[in-house]
Amino acid sequence: MRPSKRAPDALRPVTLERAVSRHAEGSCLVRFGETHVLCTATAGEPVPPWLKGSGRGWVTAEYGMLPRAPNDRMRREAAAGKQSGRTQEIQRLIGRSLRAVADLPALGEKQIIIDCDVLQADGGTRTASITGAWVALHDAITWMEARSMIKGKVLRDHVAAVSCGLYGGEAVLDLDYAEDSEADADANFVITGSGGIVEVQGTAETEPFSQEQFDQLMLLARTGIAQLVELQKLTVA
Amino acid sequence: MRPSKRAPDALRPVTLERAVSRHAEGSCLVRFGETHVLCTATAGEPVPPWLKGSGRGWVTAEYGMLPRAPNDRMRREAAAGKQSGRTQEIQRLIGRSLRAVADLPALGEKQIIIDCDVLQADGGTRTASITGAWVALHDAITWMEARSMIKGKVLRDHVAAVSCGLYGGEAVLDLDYAEDSEADADANFVITGSGGIVEVQGTAETEPFSQEQFDQLMLLARTGIAQLVELQKLTVA
Amino acid sequence: MRPSKRAPDALRPVTLERAVSRHAEGSCLVRFGETHVLCTATAGEPVPPWLKGSGRGWVTAEYGMLPRAPNDRMRREAAAGKQSGRTQEIQRLIGRSLRAVADLPALGEKQIIIDCDVLQADGGTRTASITGAWVALHDAITWMEARSMIKGKVLRDHVAAVSCGLYGGEAVLDLDYAEDSEADADANFVITGSGGIVEVQGTAETEPFSQEQFDQLMLLARTGIAQLVELQKLTVA
Amino acid sequence: MRPSKRAPDALRPVTLERAVSRHAEGSCLVRFGETHVLCTATAGEPVPPWLKGSGRGWVTAEYGMLPRAPNDRMRREAAAGKQSGRTQEIQRLIGRSLRAVADLPALGEKQIIIDCDVLQADGGTRTASITGAWVALHDAITWMEARSMIKGKVLRDHVAAVSCGLYGGEAVLDLDYAEDSEADADANFVITGSGGIVEVQGTAETEPFSQEQFDQLMLLARTGIAQLVELQKLTVA
Amino acid sequence: MRPSKRAPDALRPVTLERAVSRHAEGSCLVRFGETHVLCTATAGEPVPPWLKGSGRGWVTAEYGMLPRAPNDRMRREAAAGKQSGRTQEIQRLIGRSLRAVADLPALGEKQIIIDCDVLQADGGTRTASITGAWVALHDAITWMEARSMIKGKVLRDHVAAVSCGLYGGEAVLDLDYAEDSEADADANFVITGSGGIVEVQGTAETEPFSQEQFDQLMLLARTGIAQLVELQKLTVA
Amino acid sequence: MRPSKRAPDALRPVTLERAVSRHAEGSCLVRFGETHVLCTATAGEPVPPWLKGSGRGWVTAEYGMLPRAPNDRMRREAAAGKQSGRTQEIQRLIGRSLRAVADLPALGEKQIIIDCDVLQADGGTRTASITGAWVALHDAITWMEARSMIKGKVLRDHVAAVSCGLYGGEAVLDLDYAEDSEADADANFVITGSGGIVEVQGTAETEPFSQEQFDQLMLLARTGIAQLVELQKLTVA
Repeated sequence: MRPSKRAPDALRPVTLERAVSRHAEGSCLVRFGETHVLCTATAGEPVPPWLKGSGRGWVTAEYGMLPRAPNDRMRREAAAGKQSGRTQEIQRLIGRSLRAVADLPALGEKQIIIDCDVLQADGGTRTASITGAWVALHDAITWMEARSMIKGKVLRDHVAAVSCGLYGGEAVLDLDYAEDSEADADANFVITGSGGIVEVQGTAETEPFSQEQFDQLMLLARTGIAQLVELQKLTVA
Repeated sequence: MRPSKRAPDALRPVTLERAVSRHAEGSCLVRFGETHVLCTATAGEPVPPWLKGSGRGWVTAEYGMLPRAPNDRMRREAAAGKQSGRTQEIQRLIGRSLRAVADLPALGEKQIIIDCDVLQADGGTRTASITGAWVALHDAITWMEARSMIKGKVLRDHVAAVSCGLYGGEAVLDLDYAEDSEADADANFVITGSGGIVEVQGTAETEPFSQEQFDQLMLLARTGIAQLVELQKLTVA
Repeated sequence: MRPSKRAPDALRPVTLERAVSRHAEGSCLVRFGETHVLCTATAGEPVPPWLKGSGRGWVTAEYGMLPRAPNDRMRREAAAGKQSGRTQEIQRLIGRSLRAVADLPALGEKQIIIDCDVLQADGGTRTASITGAWVALHDAITWMEARSMIKGKVLRDHVAAVSCGLYGGEAVLDLDYAEDSEADADANFVITGSGGIVEVQGTAETEPFSQEQFDQLMLLARTGIAQLVELQKLTVA
Repeated sequence: MRPSKRAPDALRPVTLERAVSRHAEGSCLVRFGETHVLCTATAGEPVPPWLKGSGRGWVTAEYGMLPRAPNDRMRREAAAGKQSGRTQEIQRLIGRSLRAVADLPALGEKQIIIDCDVLQADGGTRTASITGAWVALHDAITWMEARSMIKGKVLRDHVAAVSCGLYGGEAVLDLDYAEDSEADADANFVITGSGGIVEVQGTAETEPFSQEQFDQLMLLARTGIAQLVELQKLTVA
Repeated sequence: MRPSKRAPDALRPVTLERAVSRHAEGSCLVRFGETHVLCTATAGEPVPPWLKGSGRGWVTAEYGMLPRAPNDRMRREAAAGKQSGRTQEIQRLIGRSLRAVADLPALGEKQIIIDCDVLQADGGTRTASITGAWVALHDAITWMEARSMIKGKVLRDHVAAVSCGLYGGEAVLDLDYAEDSEADADANFVITGSGGIVEVQGTAETEPFSQEQFDQLMLLARTGIAQLVELQKLTVA
Repeated sequence: MRPSKRAPDALRPVTLERAVSRHAEGSCLVRFGETHVLCTATAGEPVPPWLKGSGRGWVTAEYGMLPRAPNDRMRREAAAGKQSGRTQEIQRLIGRSLRAVADLPALGEKQIIIDCDVLQADGGTRTASITGAWVALHDAITWMEARSMIKGKVLRDHVAAVSCGLYGGEAVLDLDYAEDSEADADANFVITGSGGIVEVQGTAETEPFSQEQFDQLMLLARTGIAQLVELQKLTVA
């Protein structure tokens, strides 16, 4: 039995709460159980220098964690004077995931920045971030469309993410912190609404794992992500 | 008439929501109208090096603002690689304000860190932070008392803060962002439950102001802070 | 009796020595007793980016302290790689104080930078800096006027600053370091030649203080600043 | 036909040159075609603070690229004042890959640091680094064994890495820079000598890819890594 | 007898290997015994801001050392977040030395950057860098000439460098690390092919030295540099 | 005729003013004409980590320049977040020069830090710093001796420094800024009271110079330094 007592293929309770920010053009407070991430989208920023004059747009993300979001307080990155390698890995992943479902030429020469800030952490902050960021991005694009800032259809598909792991030899879905700490392997999957793979990141924590085990994790992820995409659809309907 | 249509001596709707963080030993989500700050207290940290062996404790604060808390997205301080002068001024002010009502020898050689993170900004983030931080500090101390980590009484009084300003020549209480941007003067007051002055910071924005005007701001602040202290009392009752 | 043996309302011996720098367009070596600050004004710098095209000018200040200005050597900020929160607070205060008496549109789209560098510290470095910076600013503006770089009258008033504190329960003027270290409260006042309040910063060090005590500090400050303004007038006459 | 004219399942010419550094306890100059990485192992460093007293050892890696290793000169990270997110991702990956085949308790409370510095870059620098780093690690461990610094068997298996990608719809092995720039998908695989999966990182560059395509990449990687492991065996034989 | 057993006026075996980088416009792997430095030249960069519009070009250098180039691993400067004072001194010296033999107006408004990265260190890394950098610069200029990017003759002379020191009271040429560590004085000389002095840097390590001793060092340097210039001529012939 | 109208072998008016700092254990305001440097010595600091337990002491220096010391305001290094390469070169030079005349074992395991801060710059700030730093060091050692903090004789000799250059083909002593900017060569010499050479740094600015020219610079430096040492003797007599 896994620590959370959930069935191996059970997600934590997931909620996507839209329009939680007064100022942002799109926003979503996503909860994967006790992991809570505030995603805000800022629309209409200028594109980065290397895209000036290209006619193409850009979607990027930044990630942060409040110092006491985790169980033990961590040092504030602004005070430390730099973002950790982990932070940079995660924000690059979120950005790539969103760009995989965005038509950047259709966006025109504008940038949308998604800030994902973890208010409370209990494992899976990057997968919750991607899942919620899609909603914030969706709403920012709708906001831009309403102002005729975009000509074509920018959002080509849904995208969501979930983690899987091997716990006590068994493949389990959506690990919380306690499970993640003791898992033998940990994998994050980013998959679109139509089932296309955007990112796969699997890591052996203690022992290398087998092809068969990896295939089980992939299958489990597909069932979890299908549910998350359904929830996204309900949320923005 | 001030932009917010409030009476000159009217606070915005203020709420103090306790125990909003799963991990922190004390926490409070404070709302001054559309300004929302999450305050979390971390208890039992080691004291800073200069207090090692002194037998005295320490209370300190850190302040941050999510990039899209304000109306225009601001650069993430962790990405910029340093905290702005404004951030440092504010977190030093919060720390001093809390220490003014804490009995540090009674705390023993332990540190309590209060993180104040602005989720949404509409003026008055430092005064909301101080007011909410007191609640988080209160609950962290209670948590420590329940574990016999403290011998004496650490919290000696309430402390709360509010801003006042001169708008169109008139003294008004608790400025929101729109009012703050156009005020002729801006002052922040930190006052205890028993009426003692902890901090006064008054700044002329356009023209220097008179003694009489300053005295009006001070009076207004006293009435506002009395209400905030009442609310703190109800909250932790 | 206060440690310095001065009467409660007595300033330290104050001197303002003009034109001490061969290169700067305005300069002043200000001494408040054993606190010595070199203030140099650089005229004709380009305005910060956010004022480009506005037609308005800008006056700003930077503050620093030589490592062995204080009694115990402090780490060189250039070696530490950043300015402390205290340094940033002080230089922001100096800049605001000077701008309160400057007509920025009359300056035209130019910037004047005042560097205040503490050569020797014995308490009150920020108030000495403001008082001396006014002289450096005055002389830089005269230099610009002589070169027809300014059309109108930029300097609208005098501005000076002084600290007051509660020592042994009594209000005393212009604390030196020994007095400041043991004061129960510490307040800095920035007031113009015509008596307008520019900045008030009062802080309780040990116990919160009363309204009556604060009013005494304010009164004392007014008498001190009136003397400092007189000295400024004599200096630039 | 892929740009390099290689068969889809053909590695570039790979060489592993041992003992290329006069000072390092283990070293390897690895060449994957025109990608050249110098891997040096430093043995016997103290463990990081969090392992003090644990009796366990640590293996970690740092990664760098000479400014003119790539075709266009990139800014020196030491001059920029920080390591990029990409650099940090890669060095974390190398470290995890090596630890997956190291028995850390058997190492005892010592640290081995592997520096991977890219002298010339033509795609696949992270996979070449991992493959060469194993040789440097192997030789450092042998060096320690010869000095009785280790009791048990530290190196439990081989580990090597290779990239695969979808180029023109076809799965191809070991992409060079020209191929990588135009690939539709890019995946890096880290696999042990006995076929266990250590890391899988697949990223869609333009379009999400299918499960079938991903499975092809994985298969291709296994054949490439098997050859790399054979070469490692010959090298240290 | 000096530790290396070489005659007092004997250089270590020196080799200059050209065209060792696939991408750089000029490159040289220079070996002074066990000191190995990779020098790569990047041609055609834009000039620094202060030369924009001047019609003059610029030649500059950057210097780095791989962490395990020295006998004891040193911290990676990119990880430390800054270049040491020593690194900056050396790269400024290399740049000045090359500019002393370059006709910058003839280069036109273009910049050549020479990166000198120490792969293995055994004393004399700065002198080896200068000697090898000249070859990389030469080849980059030839590359530019072949593309008609330069009108006149840019390279006016050869330039090379060598260290000398007082070991056991005797002047010796080209110190390796062991000799350098125990020398009483250490001097670096940069001299052109026609015998002009570009840089002299002499430092007493233990005791100040006499004029006569310094003159001996200078003489020794001249004989060493003459040999290095001969080798440069053979290399680029 | 050189711009300053001085004879080729004439120093600028030099003054050494002792005991100018209330707090420092030794201090000297040195003036080489319009170049003014405040040197303060801090005695009794703990030695750097690598000397702990060695029984030896250390003498080191830090160098800084006030932003408006030069003719054009330069950016404050504390605000820039790092010390320039030039600053680091100079402070390393000052430290080495002082250590050359200090008996570090006699000092015992204590550190003396000399801060050299340029209040006004007109060329030769590093040579003025060394010359004044010796006086500050001397007085700090006397202060320590008076407190029986040192057993033996720490200061073994005088040390002073001066620059020379080739101006219009002629060797001239002690260049001011205008001369330095147009010199064909620039050399700094650090020489002891007994004539031993501590540091020689000669740099060709436009054309390499000849051995004969260098010998002239050296001779000129010796006459200048002899006068500076005489002045040091008078100052501390």
